[in-house]
Amino acid sequence: MNRIRYLVNLSYEILDPTADFLLRIEAARTGRQSIVSEHLAITPETPATRYTDPVLHNRLLRIRANKGHLAIRYETVVEIDHRLDDGESIRQVPVAELPFEVLPFLTPSRYCESDRLMEFAMREFGGMRPGYPRVYAIREWVRNHIRFLSHSTNERTSAIDTIVERTGVCRDFAHLMIAICRALSIPARISSSLDYGADPAMGPPDFHAVVEVYLSGGWYLLDPSGVSIPTGLLRIGTGRDAADVPFAAIFGKVQSERPYIEIEALTDSAVGIGMPLATTHAISTW
Amino acid sequence: MNRIRYLVNLSYEILDPTADFLLRIEAARTGRQSIVSEHLAITPETPATRYTDPVLHNRLLRIRANKGHLAIRYETVVEIDHRLDDGESIRQVPVAELPFEVLPFLTPSRYCESDRLMEFAMREFGGMRPGYPRVYAIREWVRNHIRFLSHSTNERTSAIDTIVERTGVCRDFAHLMIAICRALSIPARISSSLDYGADPAMGPPDFHAVVEVYLSGGWYLLDPSGVSIPTGLLRIGTGRDAADVPFAAIFGKVQSERPYIEIEALTDSAVGIGMPLATTHAISTW
Amino acid sequence: MNRIRYLVNLSYEILDPTADFLLRIEAARTGRQSIVSEHLAITPETPATRYTDPVLHNRLLRIRANKGHLAIRYETVVEIDHRLDDGESIRQVPVAELPFEVLPFLTPSRYCESDRLMEFAMREFGGMRPGYPRVYAIREWVRNHIRFLSHSTNERTSAIDTIVERTGVCRDFAHLMIAICRALSIPARISSSLDYGADPAMGPPDFHAVVEVYLSGGWYLLDPSGVSIPTGLLRIGTGRDAADVPFAAIFGKVQSERPYIEIEALTDSAVGIGMPLATTHAISTW
Amino acid sequence: MNRIRYLVNLSYEILDPTADFLLRIEAARTGRQSIVSEHLAITPETPATRYTDPVLHNRLLRIRANKGHLAIRYETVVEIDHRLDDGESIRQVPVAELPFEVLPFLTPSRYCESDRLMEFAMREFGGMRPGYPRVYAIREWVRNHIRFLSHSTNERTSAIDTIVERTGVCRDFAHLMIAICRALSIPARISSSLDYGADPAMGPPDFHAVVEVYLSGGWYLLDPSGVSIPTGLLRIGTGRDAADVPFAAIFGKVQSERPYIEIEALTDSAVGIGMPLATTHAISTW
Repeated sequence: MNRIRYLVNLSYEILDPTADFLLRIEAARTGRQSIVSEHLAITPETPATRYTDPVLHNRLLRIRANKGHLAIRYETVVEIDHRLDDGESIRQVPVAELPFEVLPFLTPSRYCESDRLMEFAMREFGGMRPGYPRVYAIREWVRNHIRFLSHSTNERTSAIDTIVERTGVCRDFAHLMIAICRALSIPARISSSLDYGADPAMGPPDFHAVVEVYLSGGWYLLDPSGVSIPTGLLRIGTGRDAADVPFAAIFGKVQSERPYIEIEALTDSAVGIGMPLATTHAISTW
Repeated sequence: MNRIRYLVNLSYEILDPTADFLLRIEAARTGRQSIVSEHLAITPETPATRYTDPVLHNRLLRIRANKGHLAIRYETVVEIDHRLDDGESIRQVPVAELPFEVLPFLTPSRYCESDRLMEFAMREFGGMRPGYPRVYAIREWVRNHIRFLSHSTNERTSAIDTIVERTGVCRDFAHLMIAICRALSIPARISSSLDYGADPAMGPPDFHAVVEVYLSGGWYLLDPSGVSIPTGLLRIGTGRDAADVPFAAIFGKVQSERPYIEIEALTDSAVGIGMPLATTHAISTW
Repeated sequence: MNRIRYLVNLSYEILDPTADFLLRIEAARTGRQSIVSEHLAITPETPATRYTDPVLHNRLLRIRANKGHLAIRYETVVEIDHRLDDGESIRQVPVAELPFEVLPFLTPSRYCESDRLMEFAMREFGGMRPGYPRVYAIREWVRNHIRFLSHSTNERTSAIDTIVERTGVCRDFAHLMIAICRALSIPARISSSLDYGADPAMGPPDFHAVVEVYLSGGWYLLDPSGVSIPTGLLRIGTGRDAADVPFAAIFGKVQSERPYIEIEALTDSAVGIGMPLATTHAISTW
Repeated sequence: MNRIRYLVNLSYEILDPTADFLLRIEAARTGRQSIVSEHLAITPETPATRYTDPVLHNRLLRIRANKGHLAIRYETVVEIDHRLDDGESIRQVPVAELPFEVLPFLTPSRYCESDRLMEFAMREFGGMRPGYPRVYAIREWVRNHIRFLSHSTNERTSAIDTIVERTGVCRDFAHLMIAICRALSIPARISSSLDYGADPAMGPPDFHAVVEVYLSGGWYLLDPSGVSIPTGLLRIGTGRDAADVPFAAIFGKVQSERPYIEIEALTDSAVGIGMPLATTHAISTW
């Protein structure tokens, strides 16, 4: 069991008479992640409508704000209790047995053009025994063949660009791993998260993109960038790729500041809540 | 009111011990399309599982078949009763008022990279009054700037390729129109259909891809390729783009024949069922 | 007749034991551009080999330098005497009559994928009477459909990206115009230049990329970005596209500073040397 | 010493009043390839102008033909006497020592976007000792990671597409190998050739694209597709990539038939002319 405190401050200057915001900043409630407390403040006070996706549990906040300054502050404490499984025993689920709502995560998407990576994926990973070890081999391939390089990519960069240019940031690592998995008929999706243990050398805390794959009847979490301790990842939302889960989609002329984020692991030895730890086990998020 | 008979025969030779098929060939049941009769035959007899998407009403057929020949025959008669609206009065829905389940149709997808067309879309259509006339102008732009050219594209061709190379088939026209709409914050999706009136000069009847846009609280149908009479289009399914609605997704080593399709408009003047007619009205599918 | 003074300072920190530099910074000698004076200084003193391309007259400077600081200073005064022709009388040269050494400027190149723009170019400009007015119409199309936006592109951006995304800097404008011309069988090339009259609002003086097209037996200069006064453009070199004429190609681990450039028009009314002036005539560089 | 007979028949139906042809079908004269006999026939008799590139020795034939049928027949016998070198002793030439006319083969071109493959090339081959063995390792990598698949690509396919999709034909293998070499500062170019020993299972004889790299003061020939015996390759021309050396560039509305080609190795044991043989040596074309 881990406990994570997370705070985000967003700050905008709206130049149009009104602007619409779709925000994905609130912690998800899942079978493995519960919210101990949370607080949202919008300044100036502005009505917000909320939506929780019935399948993915993503939470969406919609705000129509008027010209001028808009500040959003969200703070939460969540408890995360991932199930740790023995990777060796986790098998790939044949397409014939996949739940129907998992099928969309087999198809190519904006940033994960799996249809173009079939030959590569089959050649490189097709001969391995299907299951978690193969997925882990994909994660290792991505981690070892792509160089983490800040500012080397932009919001248009896709898995195809990354397999060509071999540099990127966390979302590029995630997109490439997702695309390779789908090319092998393994359902895969992006998870927009927060990493409590982000290396300060890599800049201030920020949203972190990781991968979930569907195996043996559940979703398993992997971080192909290798920078986080996955047991400490707090989930915001999941989707086909980064196009589905931007933390802010803005409609209207707006100047944005970089989000300010705090994230920390809380401990309470009396009740068995410790620091997130690295593990060699597979991490199931459901 | 129109009545359409549609028949499809699929024929496969399975080379692996088993292969899995996800088929999207059955007519959708929607508020505007009802099924008078339908019949599905799988030879050799093989169990199929079915799924109807609760939001989009798409029907999916999943079959696990064994080595050897597999034939699927589906025949249906459907009644279609599209609502015809006056385009002038149909307005664009602000993002703040869109139903949440419509939001996924605003984001870029595999074949509709709307994020790269923002400047073009704003420059070309941004100054027009939002609503159906602007959407129709987009449809006209696509129809007039792209040349229908069989075999000029393939299953990897996207809206970006089409705006560059200016040739394509129906799905390319659809993808480009969808991408432009989304770049203007207009929800848009692909509709996999059958066109009863396909020009024999363009080859045997085939699946036909058209566009639906969300305006004034409902989805409206447009055919940017200009080859169909939209009131006679029978819907199979809708999705973000062609990646979501292939008529057949096959997992395993399989040889395919080109699908055989029959499609015709049935008339019965006694009960007011005539031929689908061209219309200058906007066609709502809900 | 115009007289331009141009100075460039390059400054590098070489981290490897040695590094090789190919520099294209010296003013070209052409039938219309003569060098009044020039001076090159390399610090520390380092031998340089020189090469002048026999066909294009480009001058190349090759330097092998050792670890540590390297500074290059080049200053020149040139006289430019472009021939001004009446555009209406300038015709397109049929491929059958083009000089053989002009043919390479008909083929697609790294940043000018003219092969993908054939349909667009024919559709948009194919109906116009061949010759300078059509080339000028292409220049106007590019200028009016692309937005000058600093830092919107990078060194990998090509004409295809620009026709999609519709923003760019001078080299992107040049690449797109070149690609369109070649798609219409009009030889076109890039010219790496200096623009004496660069708008200070657009940043400090920098190299400027413009276009030359081959018509009526000679090369004509056009600036599709519209920011320069073409009669005052000092030529460094020409090539198929920016890949051929980088001001510095560096082999080895080197830290670079942004080049410092001064450029000014000198006048001497006694001998009829005035300021470069805008003209409605076609400007021949040979 | 080898002797090769090569015949090509081209057949066109010209629909416009006139059309221009640039043909690259004649055997090159190089230091290692001499022409024993050759004969060109154009029907109907039509004047042709010829051009031999002073640097590359490529021969170009330009024909302006009138509406109607045009047939071109070219037949030649050439002698080829490649120098075979010990690969171990062939070193890479530093940029500082490259002949200036070789420098264009270092830059990215239409189908060889070497600028995007720098990280990959350095990571995969950067640690190897420069020289022929490293170049051969690149050839082996391409041969082993790309699958020869007829009709899997088209005339727009570039090295970037090939490294992503991992299938292609000979020109795709060549473009990828060239791009990787240039990314490592090794000059590389395409060579349009004829392969006397083409496997009949791969279809009728056709033009064959291979690679030349500049090492130790000369150009060396490699076939990354692995289908030819390089000592028996007859050269037509060389260039930066396939954009420079199409066997026919046609300007005007013309219907083309697939070229008919015959190619065979002639032997004459009396004078020591045998069949081209496979060799483990490096093959210098100069």
